[in-house]
Amino acid sequence: MRRFGAIAIAGVGLIGGSIGMALRARGLADRVIGLGRDRLRLDEAKALGAIDEGTTDPSEAAVEAEIIVVCTPTDRIADDVKRLAAIAPADTLITDAGSAKGRILRAVEHDDRARRMFVGAHPLAGSERRGAVAAREDLFVDRVCVLTPTEWTAPELLERAERFWAGIGCRIVRMDPDAHDAALARTSHLPHLVASALALSVPAEYLPLAAGAYRDGTRVAASDPELWIAIFQENSEHLLDALDEYRQSLDQFRHALVSGDQESLRRLWSRSKALRERFQEFG
Amino acid sequence: MRRFGAIAIAGVGLIGGSIGMALRARGLADRVIGLGRDRLRLDEAKALGAIDEGTTDPSEAAVEAEIIVVCTPTDRIADDVKRLAAIAPADTLITDAGSAKGRILRAVEHDDRARRMFVGAHPLAGSERRGAVAAREDLFVDRVCVLTPTEWTAPELLERAERFWAGIGCRIVRMDPDAHDAALARTSHLPHLVASALALSVPAEYLPLAAGAYRDGTRVAASDPELWIAIFQENSEHLLDALDEYRQSLDQFRHALVSGDQESLRRLWSRSKALRERFQEFG
Repeated sequence: MRRFGAIAIAGVGLIGGSIGMALRARGLADRVIGLGRDRLRLDEAKALGAIDEGTTDPSEAAVEAEIIVVCTPTDRIADDVKRLAAIAPADTLITDAGSAKGRILRAVEHDDRARRMFVGAHPLAGSERRGAVAAREDLFVDRVCVLTPTEWTAPELLERAERFWAGIGCRIVRMDPDAHDAALARTSHLPHLVASALALSVPAEYLPLAAGAYRDGTRVAASDPELWIAIFQENSEHLLDALDEYRQSLDQFRHALVSGDQESLRRLWSRSKALRERFQEFG
Repeated sequence: MRRFGAIAIAGVGLIGGSIGMALRARGLADRVIGLGRDRLRLDEAKALGAIDEGTTDPSEAAVEAEIIVVCTPTDRIADDVKRLAAIAPADTLITDAGSAKGRILRAVEHDDRARRMFVGAHPLAGSERRGAVAAREDLFVDRVCVLTPTEWTAPELLERAERFWAGIGCRIVRMDPDAHDAALARTSHLPHLVASALALSVPAEYLPLAAGAYRDGTRVAASDPELWIAIFQENSEHLLDALDEYRQSLDQFRHALVSGDQESLRRLWSRSKALRERFQEFG
């Protein structure tokens, strides 16, 4: 595989840091430049081996990079993409790692320059931990990365984006941004909301009596609030639809419990077990 | 520690099998007798090293045992305890591993003989897998075991029950049966119901896009339906209370999402994160 030139990563947290580590470990880029607002975090990312160098100057990063990967919080991505597109050469690939895609794509599509430079991406990888300190060079290995090309995306640009994400280990899936958001509302955003609401329902005095089901069911409730509030808001319509469907499933359980309807309980549980076992087959 | 005589285990599945393995590995009993209705499952448990011998004859097991541990499904435990109390010597300790305690204790308390032989127990250990094939000798190490003595429980009997459960590795906690059920409705039964309802809300076609939050949030949905339907029904009042509290938490999230109230989302998430981190301290 042809090695990339310089790659700039805007936002060197868990995702950005892991991308940098993967690029460096695999020798995929001439140079990995971290771009951030906080000098200390850039120095930390460099010390951890996530980037070759760090800068707080967007122009410095944008001018040199063949690829810019925007790994800032989901609600800041569209603005960052447009800002970087304005100062980077027109043949630069800008991609991102945002967990919701519809609003980002709609915002970028209004920008004549940025829409021809941008390929939206969402690598399905993460952790409830945050920051470059939690980054891992193998975070993306065998994980799905959804790419959301549009009518403005040149084939060469899409090919470069696929080569980049596949290069750090991802399996590429192409999707419409809105179909992505509908799916992820159910497979990721709803599970986060459910975990958080579940954690709220178990008072502290009961925690010594909590075991595996609580531990796994609430794990992601320990995630960074700012990150998830941004994702929830970026994908609020689909998330609300998913939440309402989920509340209907809860209501079915509730009704069966109230009426002591063993047959309905069995049917509900068996259907959910079959779906969960189906998931296991993909793992 | 004084070694026990013969110990009979009624029901040699995951829990019963793991108790047998722990007793045998630690040399805590002269003999471990498996009691079951299915000859094949007893033979399997013996082959796996969970019991020394198996019998389908309750009298044979009951007459010889110093302790009988009832590990049958939660909704069958009370009947099994009464049946075994009727044929076992009066100084036999009968204990159980049921996940809900109120209904069992109320049923056993109506039996003049059984109530003086029984100490209710709930070791907080399990797995979404089932059967002796999933049993492990270290399943109970450092896990809480709740004991629910009553006014009928002789101090010697309670002491023997504590010695038994502590012997296989548990940390003993004494509780009122109803307080146990209120707590476990929230720390265990609700998380199971939530996981199952969540699995129902993610259609099969989206599963290739599911990752860690879905995997952990739905893990226990793969548990045995019969086991969990029995537990839900044995503890339905407390579980319905817990479910209604949980639905209120969901409603708070929903309302904050609909109105774009970032401050409320932040407050809800931060409270749940703090509770989840508190749990981690006990781990």
